Amino acid sequence: MMTIRDKAKAAKSASFKLAALDSATKDAALELIALRLESRKDEIIAANREDCARSEKEQIAAPILKRLTFEDAKIADVVDGTRSLKNLSDPVGVTLLSTELDKGLDLYRVSCPIGVVGIIFESRPDALLQISTLCLKSGNAVLLKGGSEAALTNRILAEIIDAASKEAGVPEGWIQLVETRADVNEMFALNEEIDLLIPRGSNAFVKYIMDNSSIPVLGHADGVCHIYLHDDCDTDKVVPIVVDSKTQYVAACNTVENILVHESVASRELPRIKAALAEKNVEMVGCKKTCAIINIPAATTEDWHTEYVDYKVAIKVVSGLDEAIAFINEHGSGHTDSILTESATTAKTFMALVDSACVFQNCSTRFSDGFRFGFGAEVGISTSKIHARGPVGLDGLLIYKYKLIGNGQTVSQYASKEKTYTHKPMNTVCPL
Amino acid sequence: MMTIRDKAKAAKSASFKLAALDSATKDAALELIALRLESRKDEIIAANREDCARSEKEQIAAPILKRLTFEDAKIADVVDGTRSLKNLSDPVGVTLLSTELDKGLDLYRVSCPIGVVGIIFESRPDALLQISTLCLKSGNAVLLKGGSEAALTNRILAEIIDAASKEAGVPEGWIQLVETRADVNEMFALNEEIDLLIPRGSNAFVKYIMDNSSIPVLGHADGVCHIYLHDDCDTDKVVPIVVDSKTQYVAACNTVENILVHESVASRELPRIKAALAEKNVEMVGCKKTCAIINIPAATTEDWHTEYVDYKVAIKVVSGLDEAIAFINEHGSGHTDSILTESATTAKTFMALVDSACVFQNCSTRFSDGFRFGFGAEVGISTSKIHARGPVGLDGLLIYKYKLIGNGQTVSQYASKEKTYTHKPMNTVCPL
Repeated sequence: MMTIRDKAKAAKSASFKLAALDSATKDAALELIALRLESRKDEIIAANREDCARSEKEQIAAPILKRLTFEDAKIADVVDGTRSLKNLSDPVGVTLLSTELDKGLDLYRVSCPIGVVGIIFESRPDALLQISTLCLKSGNAVLLKGGSEAALTNRILAEIIDAASKEAGVPEGWIQLVETRADVNEMFALNEEIDLLIPRGSNAFVKYIMDNSSIPVLGHADGVCHIYLHDDCDTDKVVPIVVDSKTQYVAACNTVENILVHESVASRELPRIKAALAEKNVEMVGCKKTCAIINIPAATTEDWHTEYVDYKVAIKVVSGLDEAIAFINEHGSGHTDSILTESATTAKTFMALVDSACVFQNCSTRFSDGFRFGFGAEVGISTSKIHARGPVGLDGLLIYKYKLIGNGQTVSQYASKEKTYTHKPMNTVCPL
Repeated sequence: MMTIRDKAKAAKSASFKLAALDSATKDAALELIALRLESRKDEIIAANREDCARSEKEQIAAPILKRLTFEDAKIADVVDGTRSLKNLSDPVGVTLLSTELDKGLDLYRVSCPIGVVGIIFESRPDALLQISTLCLKSGNAVLLKGGSEAALTNRILAEIIDAASKEAGVPEGWIQLVETRADVNEMFALNEEIDLLIPRGSNAFVKYIMDNSSIPVLGHADGVCHIYLHDDCDTDKVVPIVVDSKTQYVAACNTVENILVHESVASRELPRIKAALAEKNVEMVGCKKTCAIINIPAATTEDWHTEYVDYKVAIKVVSGLDEAIAFINEHGSGHTDSILTESATTAKTFMALVDSACVFQNCSTRFSDGFRFGFGAEVGISTSKIHARGPVGLDGLLIYKYKLIGNGQTVSQYASKEKTYTHKPMNTVCPL
């Protein structure tokens, strides 16, 4: 049996060839994957039913079971997704910069895949398909570790992708399935082979990976998002945005956790917020001033840092914009924060000073999402400060290399002033 | 006295304000720094002479002493550098993407600083100035740790930058000097406060940091660069490029370490290479076939992985392009590799399949450098596969945030199909 290191080495080796693969072959592979998903649908559903039956017997929680289920509608969705990915232009090989360093010495910065990506995801089998087709389109090899509850589904899906892509001419070995928990821990040490880890799971798990691997991680350990109601906020926008941000999908990372209210509008807005959230069964805790106005339980220090992932929210009265910004930078997780204000100047200050991936004016925090942002596909949401931040699309799986085309030049010629650099921007597509 | 954590916290706090600072204030601060460097030149030179005298007494190696020396010419250089940085347009606040998600719901991706950067550099005081002015221009706060041999020089330089920038209106605390080795180790643990580490020192040190900190590192642990002579290489280009790549500046990371020669041109090129390198006192080791042709000592397995940082090179005869590419991907460090070939097709294959930051055709590996690439200023050279790769200019110190400007929208309105996304590219500068 292949060890995890063998698998990573095989993926690395395939990644070099995959990086140079032409667009037509990659797109043909995506089409073939879509076709095979359709033609082998019954096998997939049978495997998935076995996974579901086993999980039910093991009394797995209902929401997990729901995410695990993979039948006609979800399969049709991933087939659609794969075909729309096929129709996107190839993100690899795009000239990002071109400079004439001197006559006959031309520099190009050209997009290329990162190399080998390690994806760790939980129960949803659609995540396996989504992420591996994104990797294929962007020329990255991938090590996939799914939840054990979806073992049989993942195995047949990986097998379909592997076989179809091979048949289309994609270099073998680019997709590797990792199955045991021990393998995952071993993955974290393979910093020679794996270039980027993308965990799509619980926050605790993401944090564990960040602390236990020297491989760069794309993801977010926390989603502590804020809404701040400034003194000039439009009262008609408050309740819809607060309710949507908290309750539209409570398990998401872009859900609001702390609501900050300017003291001059607190007595007007807090009772309306309380009534609207109570109707949705949202538990509320608050600061002293909030509790004095709407009589809810007091928030603990812990509350202001907590991502509830539940129908619960913490509410605080603040003296104004400065306090709100300082509070968000101190307690937020740099994910998504929204201000309700009718003043462009106030919104501008908020957006400049709040150090978060997404800063919004007059809309729900729930918009923070790759599909809603129009990226077509989402790799994940990142709170990292380098590489990719916020909702990450296909370009999060890309980097670049420099191609320099000369005809015999040496640095000595320029050091001795025999030649001088022209450094002229070219706006030319790299010929190689 | 401030602990390193206090300093990092102060820098973090300043970084929020610095991110929002207007271009005029940053540029005024750069001008004032340049002026103060000129007006306090005598103090700087006096401090530096004390550093040099102490280092001489401690019998520090001559090349280090040379790098440590900081007098008129070098001061004039950094003053020029600071002024040319001032004249660059502000890299912060640039709209990178704009999309109408729906009428009245506009998304912008806008460039912003990374936050707090930790720089660790060795004896060169000019590095302190270069990097801290780059950070100021890009709106990043910075923790600086220089070599202890330059302690007095670094102290006065940091004091000048701090005072001049404060006088110009830059938020206090953005530049922090870290002085002891114990502090550096503490720095590595501050992943809440420090967003990026940039070590500019020995490879062993960079590797140590990469292994001992969960903070992302921009840099390169090794520079094992290659030149491959293909069978159709132009013989007139061989010796100048090989000699330049090896000897133009032997201590640089972009110096060639392994030369690969196609077997069909080995007997023609190897004797000429040997003669030219021998004249420059370069020690040569080779594979069996090489030794049979030019009678040099045999290379050990270790040699093919070694960055000599010295007048030494390893030479290998290969069967062709495929072997050369495989060898480079196996033994190289992903830094810079150059092919000598007259065929565009061959060069294209080489550039696509060699997984390095810089892939060159018919020119010296020594061109791999931010100044030569026309970036104006160089933050460092990176062999990382994410964020920034190869020579890194000012944009390596930047990331982006998303600004979404709405007028009351909720996700529920789109989920219920009451509204639909337009996802229309806008090409508009963000108004906020």
